[in-house]
Amino acid sequence: MSQTGVCYPKGFLANGIHCGIRKNKSKKDLCLIYSENICAAASVYTQNKVKGAPIAITKENLSNHLAQAIVVNSGNANTCNSNGEQIAREMAKLSANALGIQANDMIVASTGVIGQKLDITPIANHIQELADGLSVEGGIAACEAIMTTDTTIKEWHGSFVIDGKECRIGGIAKGSGMIHPNMATMLSFITSDVDISTEMLNLVIKEVADETFNMVSVDGDTSTNDMLTVMCNGQAENPQIREKGNNYAIFKEALFRVAKHLARAMAKDGEGATKLLTCQVVNAPTKQAAKHIAKSVIASSLVKSAMFGNDANWGRILCAIGYSDADYDETTIDVTFTSVAGSVDVCKQSQGVDFDEEQATQILKQEEVIIYIDMNQGKETAESWGCDLTYDYVKINGDYRT
Amino acid sequence: MSQTGVCYPKGFLANGIHCGIRKNKSKKDLCLIYSENICAAASVYTQNKVKGAPIAITKENLSNHLAQAIVVNSGNANTCNSNGEQIAREMAKLSANALGIQANDMIVASTGVIGQKLDITPIANHIQELADGLSVEGGIAACEAIMTTDTTIKEWHGSFVIDGKECRIGGIAKGSGMIHPNMATMLSFITSDVDISTEMLNLVIKEVADETFNMVSVDGDTSTNDMLTVMCNGQAENPQIREKGNNYAIFKEALFRVAKHLARAMAKDGEGATKLLTCQVVNAPTKQAAKHIAKSVIASSLVKSAMFGNDANWGRILCAIGYSDADYDETTIDVTFTSVAGSVDVCKQSQGVDFDEEQATQILKQEEVIIYIDMNQGKETAESWGCDLTYDYVKINGDYRT
Repeated sequence: MSQTGVCYPKGFLANGIHCGIRKNKSKKDLCLIYSENICAAASVYTQNKVKGAPIAITKENLSNHLAQAIVVNSGNANTCNSNGEQIAREMAKLSANALGIQANDMIVASTGVIGQKLDITPIANHIQELADGLSVEGGIAACEAIMTTDTTIKEWHGSFVIDGKECRIGGIAKGSGMIHPNMATMLSFITSDVDISTEMLNLVIKEVADETFNMVSVDGDTSTNDMLTVMCNGQAENPQIREKGNNYAIFKEALFRVAKHLARAMAKDGEGATKLLTCQVVNAPTKQAAKHIAKSVIASSLVKSAMFGNDANWGRILCAIGYSDADYDETTIDVTFTSVAGSVDVCKQSQGVDFDEEQATQILKQEEVIIYIDMNQGKETAESWGCDLTYDYVKINGDYRT
Repeated sequence: MSQTGVCYPKGFLANGIHCGIRKNKSKKDLCLIYSENICAAASVYTQNKVKGAPIAITKENLSNHLAQAIVVNSGNANTCNSNGEQIAREMAKLSANALGIQANDMIVASTGVIGQKLDITPIANHIQELADGLSVEGGIAACEAIMTTDTTIKEWHGSFVIDGKECRIGGIAKGSGMIHPNMATMLSFITSDVDISTEMLNLVIKEVADETFNMVSVDGDTSTNDMLTVMCNGQAENPQIREKGNNYAIFKEALFRVAKHLARAMAKDGEGATKLLTCQVVNAPTKQAAKHIAKSVIASSLVKSAMFGNDANWGRILCAIGYSDADYDETTIDVTFTSVAGSVDVCKQSQGVDFDEEQATQILKQEEVIIYIDMNQGKETAESWGCDLTYDYVKINGDYRT
């Protein structure tokens, strides 16, 4: 194993184990991510009014914009129960004790079933073992421990240069149902050894989340526990990023790359998905219109079902554009389907054009399909990601708790 | 056969035939509804920005608030094509000629696939036959001719008394996918022999649509062709309803009863549905909050999938309440599941309570399930209707055009 995901930047260690929250012993359920030194840290959270208890504790602990470690459990969302905040606080305290750090330097997150009490016992019994097992090679184990119905791990890393100093960034994420993020996503944790002020970090996380995780939809349901956290420990020893200049732009681009990769991975592994859908909107009159249109199309059950059936039913795309909350001219829209198998124009100036159905089916049969929408009325663009709606989505969600 | 649906009120005739728009000859595809005299008429339409061509023509023809007949085809939505308005105008003209009335007294509607040209030929060839076959017993044939993926006809009728005069009302509707109406529904046509001013009719149709058809969701997709039309021919000879008094309230209640029945029938016959879901919200702080919460819960893919699996996963209900666009206290919510098999409390004060899973499954297994949400913080109520999300929804929509 090598240094991947959240362990790719200097000074970050991670681990993931099965502690007993989940009945299935082959599934890890407790994750720890740790930086050797204190980090500038920022989070964005779900805008669902019903919020998971861990979010309250994390917000409290991040009021000074500093953190050193993240503890996450899967198998139980610790939400809508009577003692959630107490348990989340206890998770932070137990983890901090095991790591020898302050409890208010912990970030806490949970994912899983809503509305059941989370038993602290398995966490208390195994937290020291989890902390003792931290290593620079633990990125994958950490990633596995936050999965619920995900079928693949989601991680990414890369590097960038600030004033001659190589900086590194890496991240992990989990989906894969109840995915329709608003200002945040399900769970994603991104680490970097860049040196950045807390003010700039709080700015960049919002800018990037808005164009990446917030542009994903699996099923239109915005979760109670969405959270994206970025921690930067400064071990790259670059001159600290303190303003929105060139270095800010370099870091933003790096953060964007990681976040976009993880967002796409989440969409591709949406519950029951057989393919990744990307909706590209170009030449829209405003940025907001472009984003609302892209999000509306990717979230449409009818578009998603048609994509599952490899059916070039573009009328449903015009329909979804039509009910999006956006201002635009509805008479100038072109639609094209693209994949590795080629490209086919199906609608010009908001009207159907003759096309080869056979060819269209071949294009839609591929693992990634791009729905390309040219609004022909401005210069703004947006991109969103989602997946098809399949029998397996229904199967997974008809019987999730048992 | 007897006088049912739109033919129940005095002076209304209807008919439905197969004219050749649909390939399957066993499926009717052309519908005509006719009043012996001119009617006060009102429509509400989809708020989708991409609108079907027939809506433009109907709006034009209803600018004087009068109409005498309705022509509807199924099998093609006459939307997003190059000559839609011309064809819709031609449909009105051909029908008016066959009936011997003015073209601008016609209401035109279409439902089916979006984005294909509608050939006027089969309509032109069969419109006289359709008109000649009009009868007071044609309500069911008319209803059959507007069906697409509907598996059952949807009609209802009843009577009420205004100042000692018996008045009658009846209606038909079709669903059953792309159902998430906003200010209107898919197609519904309601007739009455009541005498009512056009001003009062335009008021009551909006009030009733908002509480009935606009509270249904099958799949979250707001169609391009939604339309509800009410026609009143005055043959009941009641004193004309000209103000919002007692008689207005009596007619509103009758219209509400018909509309609610049709809305529920539409939800129950949602594409692939195995059961009807009713979401009742009580004791909400505002009417708007009650409605937004009811609509959010009934539209959630995760709630709908859980209902298909008879899984009392109430956390998803709290989640859907949480992301609804409404102001309320999220800490005082009770949730109960009810059906003919009994009732089970699953959440009190926004927290899980112990319940018998076996009993809950039995309750959820029934053909109609009520999700009862007590907000415990005001006096406002709302009700919404939908259905479960099933394998068959995906099957139907993965391959709708072929």
